[in-house]
Amino acid sequence: MPPKLVLPVERKRGEPALTESRRTVVCSRGGTCEAAVDASEISSLLEQKDTFVWLDLQNPQAADVQLLHDEFQFHPLSIEDATRHHERPKLEAFEKYYFMVFYELGYSRDDQRLRSQAIGLFIGTNYIVSVHNQPIATIDETIKRWQNNTAEFGNDAGALLYSLLDSIVDDYFPVIDELAERVEDIEQQIFEHFQEEALQQVFALKRDLLGVRRVVSPERDVLNVLIRREVPIFERNTILYLQDVYDHIVRITDSIDTYRDLLSSALDAFLSLQSNQLNQIVKVLTITSIVLMCDALIAGIYGMNFEFMPELHWRYGYPFALGLMVVISISLVLYLRRRKWL
Amino acid sequence: MPPKLVLPVERKRGEPALTESRRTVVCSRGGTCEAAVDASEISSLLEQKDTFVWLDLQNPQAADVQLLHDEFQFHPLSIEDATRHHERPKLEAFEKYYFMVFYELGYSRDDQRLRSQAIGLFIGTNYIVSVHNQPIATIDETIKRWQNNTAEFGNDAGALLYSLLDSIVDDYFPVIDELAERVEDIEQQIFEHFQEEALQQVFALKRDLLGVRRVVSPERDVLNVLIRREVPIFERNTILYLQDVYDHIVRITDSIDTYRDLLSSALDAFLSLQSNQLNQIVKVLTITSIVLMCDALIAGIYGMNFEFMPELHWRYGYPFALGLMVVISISLVLYLRRRKWL
Amino acid sequence: MPPKLVLPVERKRGEPALTESRRTVVCSRGGTCEAAVDASEISSLLEQKDTFVWLDLQNPQAADVQLLHDEFQFHPLSIEDATRHHERPKLEAFEKYYFMVFYELGYSRDDQRLRSQAIGLFIGTNYIVSVHNQPIATIDETIKRWQNNTAEFGNDAGALLYSLLDSIVDDYFPVIDELAERVEDIEQQIFEHFQEEALQQVFALKRDLLGVRRVVSPERDVLNVLIRREVPIFERNTILYLQDVYDHIVRITDSIDTYRDLLSSALDAFLSLQSNQLNQIVKVLTITSIVLMCDALIAGIYGMNFEFMPELHWRYGYPFALGLMVVISISLVLYLRRRKWL
Amino acid sequence: MPPKLVLPVERKRGEPALTESRRTVVCSRGGTCEAAVDASEISSLLEQKDTFVWLDLQNPQAADVQLLHDEFQFHPLSIEDATRHHERPKLEAFEKYYFMVFYELGYSRDDQRLRSQAIGLFIGTNYIVSVHNQPIATIDETIKRWQNNTAEFGNDAGALLYSLLDSIVDDYFPVIDELAERVEDIEQQIFEHFQEEALQQVFALKRDLLGVRRVVSPERDVLNVLIRREVPIFERNTILYLQDVYDHIVRITDSIDTYRDLLSSALDAFLSLQSNQLNQIVKVLTITSIVLMCDALIAGIYGMNFEFMPELHWRYGYPFALGLMVVISISLVLYLRRRKWL
Amino acid sequence: MPPKLVLPVERKRGEPALTESRRTVVCSRGGTCEAAVDASEISSLLEQKDTFVWLDLQNPQAADVQLLHDEFQFHPLSIEDATRHHERPKLEAFEKYYFMVFYELGYSRDDQRLRSQAIGLFIGTNYIVSVHNQPIATIDETIKRWQNNTAEFGNDAGALLYSLLDSIVDDYFPVIDELAERVEDIEQQIFEHFQEEALQQVFALKRDLLGVRRVVSPERDVLNVLIRREVPIFERNTILYLQDVYDHIVRITDSIDTYRDLLSSALDAFLSLQSNQLNQIVKVLTITSIVLMCDALIAGIYGMNFEFMPELHWRYGYPFALGLMVVISISLVLYLRRRKWL
Repeated sequence: MPPKLVLPVERKRGEPALTESRRTVVCSRGGTCEAAVDASEISSLLEQKDTFVWLDLQNPQAADVQLLHDEFQFHPLSIEDATRHHERPKLEAFEKYYFMVFYELGYSRDDQRLRSQAIGLFIGTNYIVSVHNQPIATIDETIKRWQNNTAEFGNDAGALLYSLLDSIVDDYFPVIDELAERVEDIEQQIFEHFQEEALQQVFALKRDLLGVRRVVSPERDVLNVLIRREVPIFERNTILYLQDVYDHIVRITDSIDTYRDLLSSALDAFLSLQSNQLNQIVKVLTITSIVLMCDALIAGIYGMNFEFMPELHWRYGYPFALGLMVVISISLVLYLRRRKWL
Repeated sequence: MPPKLVLPVERKRGEPALTESRRTVVCSRGGTCEAAVDASEISSLLEQKDTFVWLDLQNPQAADVQLLHDEFQFHPLSIEDATRHHERPKLEAFEKYYFMVFYELGYSRDDQRLRSQAIGLFIGTNYIVSVHNQPIATIDETIKRWQNNTAEFGNDAGALLYSLLDSIVDDYFPVIDELAERVEDIEQQIFEHFQEEALQQVFALKRDLLGVRRVVSPERDVLNVLIRREVPIFERNTILYLQDVYDHIVRITDSIDTYRDLLSSALDAFLSLQSNQLNQIVKVLTITSIVLMCDALIAGIYGMNFEFMPELHWRYGYPFALGLMVVISISLVLYLRRRKWL
Repeated sequence: MPPKLVLPVERKRGEPALTESRRTVVCSRGGTCEAAVDASEISSLLEQKDTFVWLDLQNPQAADVQLLHDEFQFHPLSIEDATRHHERPKLEAFEKYYFMVFYELGYSRDDQRLRSQAIGLFIGTNYIVSVHNQPIATIDETIKRWQNNTAEFGNDAGALLYSLLDSIVDDYFPVIDELAERVEDIEQQIFEHFQEEALQQVFALKRDLLGVRRVVSPERDVLNVLIRREVPIFERNTILYLQDVYDHIVRITDSIDTYRDLLSSALDAFLSLQSNQLNQIVKVLTITSIVLMCDALIAGIYGMNFEFMPELHWRYGYPFALGLMVVISISLVLYLRRRKWL
Repeated sequence: MPPKLVLPVERKRGEPALTESRRTVVCSRGGTCEAAVDASEISSLLEQKDTFVWLDLQNPQAADVQLLHDEFQFHPLSIEDATRHHERPKLEAFEKYYFMVFYELGYSRDDQRLRSQAIGLFIGTNYIVSVHNQPIATIDETIKRWQNNTAEFGNDAGALLYSLLDSIVDDYFPVIDELAERVEDIEQQIFEHFQEEALQQVFALKRDLLGVRRVVSPERDVLNVLIRREVPIFERNTILYLQDVYDHIVRITDSIDTYRDLLSSALDAFLSLQSNQLNQIVKVLTITSIVLMCDALIAGIYGMNFEFMPELHWRYGYPFALGLMVVISISLVLYLRRRKWL
Repeated sequence: MPPKLVLPVERKRGEPALTESRRTVVCSRGGTCEAAVDASEISSLLEQKDTFVWLDLQNPQAADVQLLHDEFQFHPLSIEDATRHHERPKLEAFEKYYFMVFYELGYSRDDQRLRSQAIGLFIGTNYIVSVHNQPIATIDETIKRWQNNTAEFGNDAGALLYSLLDSIVDDYFPVIDELAERVEDIEQQIFEHFQEEALQQVFALKRDLLGVRRVVSPERDVLNVLIRREVPIFERNTILYLQDVYDHIVRITDSIDTYRDLLSSALDAFLSLQSNQLNQIVKVLTITSIVLMCDALIAGIYGMNFEFMPELHWRYGYPFALGLMVVISISLVLYLRRRKWL
């Protein structure tokens, strides 16, 4: 079947136009870097074993897609995956390169909203191509660090990948901390000063935890594969470093599961406290109505029209009746309090 | 044991009669296609290595079954599975061909109903036989595309199968999107303007998600087997493409699980909001009844027949009593409001 | 340790006596069958490679157990398992034969009761011994079919076993259909016209599903072993047929899991509808009591004994009071209806 | 590290003192048994290949521990495990012997209490050492059976172990039956004549099922290891027998899971029936109060003091009022009954 | 990539300053120990095969980190993990040493709070380096025991590690016992004398169990790896001992799961008992109000102003009315009690 190139589609909803950008950084093993290389030279650069190329495409256009195909000879399927937005995190081995999808996560405090953005990565022996839609700070930083320390990185794809993944995953922790704080907030709202609004927050948080889990859980698998399988384009030493990133991801999934457990506990608590609180109120109100009915009964009795009712003719009959009401009310309350119903 | 041929049975319930059709398309590697070949020539065509046969049977009759047996020598068991309607998605390796069951999914907006239809596929080195009951658009399209680009497809069973499965699975996404939209609808119905009807919809949606899962989950296994196991009748390159379909299916099962989680969250929310709303009403009503009882008590007291009740002889006793009622009612309401019971 | 023979025990509870029967059918490969062979001749018949023996024991007695031991030299443990009633479905490989426990399932519509009965099967190269307690139709049919088509079956243990298992498993489907129908019944009872009796049915059905699952789930494992492991006494071709039975069992377990999910959904729905319905009633009743209390308050007010109450001397004071009650009642109802509380 | 011997500690709580006992039974292959051998001779007896030693220690003391160490050279760790009480069921392979922990289960009907007791077993080629705290009937029986049939058992450690485990596991069934009966009891209490006490029983039973599961589930693993792994000190034939014990344990864990499912169903049923029953009562009571309020309203109306109320002067005004009350009450009840609220 | 050394950061919150300490203990195989060795001599000591070095770092500072790097040549990643506080329990194999993270657990009775502290362990053939933040008693004890019995420990890293892990894990048991006691406390609070406060405790306990599980569960994996994988720097005999520690950890995780099950049972019980208790109260109160309304109705009837009401003129009409109230109240109570509503 002939390879078919799928050009990137416009985003569906009326979102603000994304700025596109294409950046090519080439470093020779000696340590000299060039930041603005003409993209059409890439294929010839790649043939020189001592140079390393990082091509970063933001919001790729038709020309970029063509570039990936012409200069790198990437498989059309992986190009399609890189330019689409909804791919799951994954790792695919092609004959000459690896294709990886990884996610950046962010959390904006203002609208309490999770942000996630896919990054497509093509990893070859002497190149990395990163494809994404919006600016990603960690990629900029990693490229800058590499440019400043080319000698240290030794133009090793593995070291660069580790450096990138490590800072991406390090950015997960503030997100998790934010979620953890919200879980604690909710617990306080429920246990310390019971608030009805907690319920809606529980569900919003549950949704966020599901969202993070959906990204992080397949990423764990991706890293697991990277560690277990021998990846020939990485130096052996790199595995150790990737193991470290893997450990962080495992810790994050652990945390998420714990918070989900705590959250469903909190929900149970909410429901039982809610029912408890309302029942408490209904109880007090019912007791009040009993007391009032007793008093009304007395008033009703002395409102009867019998001819012969001695109390009616007492001088202090009226205060007596009122006093009777007070006495009965107080004794009822005391009795119910003793029986722990109040 | 002798092979026994089971002829297709009539569908049980009084459904509208399905139109039957038999179509045979034969393309030579050179690129010429013939659309209406006599079925009885198939066995001789199959012996020519440079032709590829696609036989599509819709609502197969006894004669078709006989054809599958005589011209293709398919195993009676796989013929039986292909003409029955309830088979699970599966892949079975026979000596000379593979037999596969896959499902088409659709969703009709009008009656919010899921539709699923089994497709039986026999895949040999130079033929594909597809068996189904009702017209299936993706099969028609795939055949058309193949006829127009025979050279590109290169008469490779794997490329054709990929092309078919890919468009079938692509048709799953609108279904999933529809379900996702309904989940969001339900959440809005519950959280934004609480509606009792949401409950029934939750259960209808749960049923649909179960239905989709039941189809998609074994299909994932089928594709997993296709990718892992070396399938000798496919070109190596095809595996990469099938991997892509596999990724889509995995993403779909992921989504379904997420929606199921969200749905059960929504159900919990529904129940707690329902109980909350009703309790709220009962609370207000109970409070009202307390206020009324207080007023009635005052009326009762001044309805007593004691001889000596000074208020009864006051000039403004009546308005005084009415005023007392109003004062007590208002202070009660204010008090309860301060205690957060209202 | 010396083999010990455990004789079959009487059934514990006072059940009706089971009729015992012993049947020996011997067919030669040529196609001639003999239906009533003396059991003591079996061991000599088994030595002839071209005869095949099927011994069917219903409600085995001490003499039958002795026969299994003397003529077949079965291991005492497998004999014990065959004559006991509670064994789980399983497959055990002995040196010269396989021992298998499988279950027949039935459903009697009258008392909505599941019936299950264990069948012990000894499978050797040229014999099958089936042991059970009550008459089993599928065994009778399989033997009859074999007698009529000896040539076709070719005296192959695998073909006979397939034929038996296939009809046993085919008999599961009506049971599952029955359960499915009951699930639908329950859903209708709950959603369309809410009935309290549905609850008890939910639990009865849950019990039945657990019961079927407990039988079918280990049977799936048994068949899986039969397919995966090379079983030397079966012809290769048989595996394909057993794969078919395996597929059916998998479909059945799938269905059971789906029905269990639907059932627990239905239970949730039941509970929430029940609470909904009752709350609805309580709400209406509470509102009614409020209206009545308002009216009673008016009556109470005009029942007060103040000297100066102008309304009491109005010519139309009485109808005015009654009118006031009606007006207040109606406006209350209208107000509450506008606030959606009614 | 030097082996350290940990001596058995006294049991924590003030339990009745356990009687200690030490018993050594030695049988030669010929069939002669000696029941009271001096423990210090054991090491020399063990060197004779044709004798088999069973040492049973009940409530072992310091001297017994020393004996295990001096005569058998057991590893200090396994001696420690054998004399402690809380070990999980397990199997450990040492160089010359196996160490196993297994549990006896019992159920006393009087106080509905589960009893479990650990048994430590050292299994060598020609000895078994059993260590426990309280008398265990199955050990006594197994030793007696062995003494009476030494020839049959053939001084095979595997046969003896099977014999012991088989009778231990057989003793589980009455316990399971007891639990099953209690589950049925609870279901009857809930469904047939609803009893509030069922709740506490549900939880007690849940606790017991958890307890049994905690013992039986690792025992299944122990037996699984025994069957799968080649255990050189057992004769091949023994595996078949252990397979039988394994099947029984699997059946028991199956049953436990089923009962746990049924129990949680029963709990759900309990809760919904409880809420149902109480709601039913509250409904009836609320309706009653409505009826009473209607009647009271009529009384209140005719208690008003208007000058012009014609009914008050009717000759039969009083019976008319009473009749009105009766009529309204009855029509209300009839109306509500028709609307299915009663 | 060049190794980068990350220096330990200050703890975030305003916690009390931790005292730092560095201790180096060196023992020669002969049995002589030296407790205060200059750290800079370590690298030369490590070259002597017959000495064993234990370096214990509490609250490590920049100089300590440098030491680990210079004298031991540990990988920067493992040094970073050792000086950070939140690592999961894990085991990592480096070329010349193992790096392990394990946790100490404690429970302070005063504030019912779990304490956990990470310990980083570097294990080489003739050294152990332990890194932690606060004083840890078990480390001090293990070093002391080793110093006193150098000959026994034989300078074997495995024996020392076992000794340390064993005492760490032994310290888990009191924690688990404490949790178990709290579970029992809660059950008593719920079942024997129902207390509302139990709810909050259930959730606190759930949180603690989750916390312990989060530490213990990966530790089980760590030990499993140690047992399964051949660890060349340990003597073979050590595996047996580690197996023992592993068994303890498995028992602990078992217990935790059981307690979690019991706890969620207890929560269910709490909720149903809470609803039961409140319903009970509401029921009694509603019944009381019915009785009072009946009495009030009688009073209302005799408060009507009809001209012709014979009872009003009876001599004993008033006591008759009061008596009627008493009679009706008593019969109502008796009737409801007979219908089991009271």
